[in-house]
Amino acid sequence: MSKRLNLLVFSGDYDKALAALILANGAKEMNMDVTMFFAFWGLLILRDPAKYTTEDKSFFEKVFGVFTPKRTEALSLSKMNMGGVGQKMLRKMMKEKKKPMLTDFLNGARKKDIKFYGCKLSQEVMGFKKDELIPEVEIIEVDEYLKDALQSDIQLFI
Amino acid sequence: MSKRLNLLVFSGDYDKALAALILANGAKEMNMDVTMFFAFWGLLILRDPAKYTTEDKSFFEKVFGVFTPKRTEALSLSKMNMGGVGQKMLRKMMKEKKKPMLTDFLNGARKKDIKFYGCKLSQEVMGFKKDELIPEVEIIEVDEYLKDALQSDIQLFI
Amino acid sequence: MSKRLNLLVFSGDYDKALAALILANGAKEMNMDVTMFFAFWGLLILRDPAKYTTEDKSFFEKVFGVFTPKRTEALSLSKMNMGGVGQKMLRKMMKEKKKPMLTDFLNGARKKDIKFYGCKLSQEVMGFKKDELIPEVEIIEVDEYLKDALQSDIQLFI
Repeated sequence: MSKRLNLLVFSGDYDKALAALILANGAKEMNMDVTMFFAFWGLLILRDPAKYTTEDKSFFEKVFGVFTPKRTEALSLSKMNMGGVGQKMLRKMMKEKKKPMLTDFLNGARKKDIKFYGCKLSQEVMGFKKDELIPEVEIIEVDEYLKDALQSDIQLFI
Repeated sequence: MSKRLNLLVFSGDYDKALAALILANGAKEMNMDVTMFFAFWGLLILRDPAKYTTEDKSFFEKVFGVFTPKRTEALSLSKMNMGGVGQKMLRKMMKEKKKPMLTDFLNGARKKDIKFYGCKLSQEVMGFKKDELIPEVEIIEVDEYLKDALQSDIQLFI
Repeated sequence: MSKRLNLLVFSGDYDKALAALILANGAKEMNMDVTMFFAFWGLLILRDPAKYTTEDKSFFEKVFGVFTPKRTEALSLSKMNMGGVGQKMLRKMMKEKKKPMLTDFLNGARKKDIKFYGCKLSQEVMGFKKDELIPEVEIIEVDEYLKDALQSDIQLFI
């Protein structure tokens, strides 16, 4: 039976999202089963930039949608972001070394049959509609995350 | 035998505390055994707002006690806190959707026989007296945390 | 057979590095096998302050090397760092209680046969040469981290 990696992606930071997706892609290449459960800020990683809507949203939901990054490549760093300067610098350093970018790792994961879950409570509180997220995401409750985590060999909170 | 969830709660952020306590309550409802070990900033989540004291404290301990939040609902966000504006907005969004607040999840966990441990080293360094924390907390050393973690099916660092 | 602890140290913050190294030292004292895999900001913990070089580095690598802390004791706090004031205060509080400092825990871990791995991708992107890091570090790829984690009893992402 395949070994399983289960990641709870709480963070919506560029660098932590990168860490999560590098682990997910790496595990999949080793024939492990991989589940990613995106909660809170982690949902920002899954926004479909073409699908932003303000329809049926409360005032706070609109504000939240506008003030958070819509594109994966616009997520900020967990440290030394410096209004985006640090983030641009990191991305330039990655390009210099010809490394894939966050979007590449995300698209790799989407093609590789990695399971994407979104946290129902977070989605409701933040006011994201199901179709504002990439279509691969399935929205689940916390008990379904826990069941999956119990069947996994490695569980990490990122 | 019951499955076990072990959480090391290092963070004292409102959003991460929420994640930890949602997981803890959810696991307990699935009849899992749950241990939460609060270290460093995580101890802030366990402060009893009525029990703050400056007695027998060094200058730094007093400063630390005053400059950190005394109430669970006053903890700041790990991201987009914006001097408390972001935190208030998140709490309003939670109320709008009629979701329980952090204090509700904490009180739920206290009633549900979830084991609360506090880290001895952190408690000593930060200068919290045992009775400045909620009475359910038992203060333990790191080796006791590790023993508990070894017997658990899921271990997360939050 | 010995139980195993596997830590993925992503953070380069003083307080989180302290948590990681306290866990590592504590586990080793319980005769557990301990692996620490340092990625991204975590590599900053492993810089050898005497070995900084700008040779063969791109503009961004030089900027990055200069703007990040060179000494372990100069790492910033994940919270309440306040331009270093909070960090100094925490260190004073640790000294007041006669607790070991971060460097002591790091040196303890180096003497105790704890395995130090550095992430190859992070090292390349950040532009650290192998000898700018402490000599105990072995540079590995993510699949080697995952293999080690799969054989461990506790895995944490810090």
